[in-house]
Amino acid sequence: MTVPSTYLQMFSTLNESGELCLELVEKPVPTPKANEVLVRIEATPINPSDQGVMFGWADISAASTSGNGSKSVLSAPVSEQGMRVMKARVGQALPVGNEGAGTVVATGDSELASSLQGKVVAVMGGSMYAQYRCVDAATCLPLHDGHSAKDGASCFVNPLTALSMIETMKMEGHSALVHTAAASNLGQMLVRICQADGVELVNIVRKEEQAKLLRDMGAKYVVNSSSDNFKAELTDAIHATGATLAFDATGGGTLASDILACMEAAASRTPGAYSIYGSVKHKQVYLYGNLDTSPTVLQRAYGMAWGVGGWLLPNFLAKAGTEVVARLRARVASELKTTFASHYTNEISLVEALDADTVRQYYAKHTGEKFLICSQK
Amino acid sequence: MTVPSTYLQMFSTLNESGELCLELVEKPVPTPKANEVLVRIEATPINPSDQGVMFGWADISAASTSGNGSKSVLSAPVSEQGMRVMKARVGQALPVGNEGAGTVVATGDSELASSLQGKVVAVMGGSMYAQYRCVDAATCLPLHDGHSAKDGASCFVNPLTALSMIETMKMEGHSALVHTAAASNLGQMLVRICQADGVELVNIVRKEEQAKLLRDMGAKYVVNSSSDNFKAELTDAIHATGATLAFDATGGGTLASDILACMEAAASRTPGAYSIYGSVKHKQVYLYGNLDTSPTVLQRAYGMAWGVGGWLLPNFLAKAGTEVVARLRARVASELKTTFASHYTNEISLVEALDADTVRQYYAKHTGEKFLICSQK
Repeated sequence: MTVPSTYLQMFSTLNESGELCLELVEKPVPTPKANEVLVRIEATPINPSDQGVMFGWADISAASTSGNGSKSVLSAPVSEQGMRVMKARVGQALPVGNEGAGTVVATGDSELASSLQGKVVAVMGGSMYAQYRCVDAATCLPLHDGHSAKDGASCFVNPLTALSMIETMKMEGHSALVHTAAASNLGQMLVRICQADGVELVNIVRKEEQAKLLRDMGAKYVVNSSSDNFKAELTDAIHATGATLAFDATGGGTLASDILACMEAAASRTPGAYSIYGSVKHKQVYLYGNLDTSPTVLQRAYGMAWGVGGWLLPNFLAKAGTEVVARLRARVASELKTTFASHYTNEISLVEALDADTVRQYYAKHTGEKFLICSQK
Repeated sequence: MTVPSTYLQMFSTLNESGELCLELVEKPVPTPKANEVLVRIEATPINPSDQGVMFGWADISAASTSGNGSKSVLSAPVSEQGMRVMKARVGQALPVGNEGAGTVVATGDSELASSLQGKVVAVMGGSMYAQYRCVDAATCLPLHDGHSAKDGASCFVNPLTALSMIETMKMEGHSALVHTAAASNLGQMLVRICQADGVELVNIVRKEEQAKLLRDMGAKYVVNSSSDNFKAELTDAIHATGATLAFDATGGGTLASDILACMEAAASRTPGAYSIYGSVKHKQVYLYGNLDTSPTVLQRAYGMAWGVGGWLLPNFLAKAGTEVVARLRARVASELKTTFASHYTNEISLVEALDADTVRQYYAKHTGEKFLICSQK
């Protein structure tokens, strides 16, 4: 494979004037150092966590694209409040794209690096919305024979997040889980992992077709938040499973508070679990996403043994340590086409990812819709 | 001292009809078992945490008292929402009063129990709004010679809470503290402990006279939340101290969220502390009180490494273990008249504690106002 001398990479910049710009920059292709490999990026997904860096608090409904081809620039206005929140990134060209996969086209001299020559590998190293990426060989996850870059593009964010939810559950002394936005790609993975591992899972969805999708997969507890009896149904499911931990992808509104209230109501059915200061067992909701950007509203009618907090995969992996991470990565590689299979509804090029109408489409984050950037397209 | 055959004890009962009743019940004085002692309760404080059990979600503005003397009954209506929250306690006569002190007037045969005969001891065992209380001798904290029951009435809730805040800070890897409602009895104790232990403390108060009180005590960082520049001043104080942990007595509103936002703003001033997902160091606010019963509103504009949760002294002490608890108790006894001195603005009898107007006065929880029940009055 011939390696060109330059390549295109996407950057997001917030200007002091209150405008966010997303564009492609031409850069020289680097030569790998001893422990490094050069990966020709072939497939890289657009995750909600990528969009946090790409767009931040910009107003995407008012975004527009100027220029053509590799000179396209997406611009979007940012409100005063948004500028305050994003103050720390003003003027910095931030690389985007957390994960992706492709072929190793050049390597350094080290044994590990040179052993990867020609292999298809998955990488989670940031700066992945690009045509090439030079990374430490040790961070690459070599795919099994017969697995393509497209199969391995989403090896990390969703699979490791789903697996880390189970690890968090075990580390923090819980025995079952509640998950919101449960019909997502990630949610479906979690259903499969919990089935394989014998972990009880309460799935919260917003629509009947999402509930049906999960039930058809064999999910045992599926609760629709649009139901008139939502809280009673959620309390029943929590009581049946004993879940005292939830992962919430929506973040805003009263959902986290409602889950805690249902956990408390479930605990009050169990003799001995209740005291005058509320149930004794710690109840925790982690907000790992931001689908609802409104404030989180906590009613606090669930005693004193509760917590709500942010949850971020890299922070968890750092805390879990290298042994745990290696175990989780190996499982992803070996179950890539089953448990961790991802489905993409749209494949687009780097340039198409800057088109305002296309941006609005993937920015909407519709359940079941997932975009893949094919950087060589 | 002659021990009577019966004594009065206060109970709080929520009736199914939506009425909360607080009254005195006559009970036979028990004979201590081998390991027990009978304490003649002489002084027992009314803490906010006691009032949670006494009144719950009842409407105290509409409370009234019927009957006379030891037959007085305080009644207060409870809203439908309040009934839902308190469902688990309907029909139960709950004993009230977390802590108090008095003289040991009878003991069991064990060595420890009989060694306490005639001693003035502090007790945290619940059911303290009473004239007598029989407890395990091991739970008693004997006061030093010359210290009275009134000196030792508040040995546990405030002193152990203040000390446990420092313990929590150390256990969870923080190095400085933020405290709200900082001019309270508890807040003043915390100021003295932090000065003695060399811990940096950011005090948040609502009024200038409270700020002056703390500054006169030598507090270094005092921020007034009524100031126009509150957030800027709080950010400066957090930056100067490096505080990433806060204890909030108010619970409701946006104060917890504002503290997290200021911690984030302080972190963004420190090179290397900031990433695109927000500052990396975990920022935590514990809600240990409920002075503001409105919902907690979290803006979530402070990255992903944050947590908000309930904090309850008994839960913490159970986690900390017996060695830590023994160390903290010994410190309270030896610094009872200095670091842990409590001031009472009103001394009332058990019967007076049931008078509707008196209830409304202590229910208001004005900063600096503190009521002591003298059970033998």
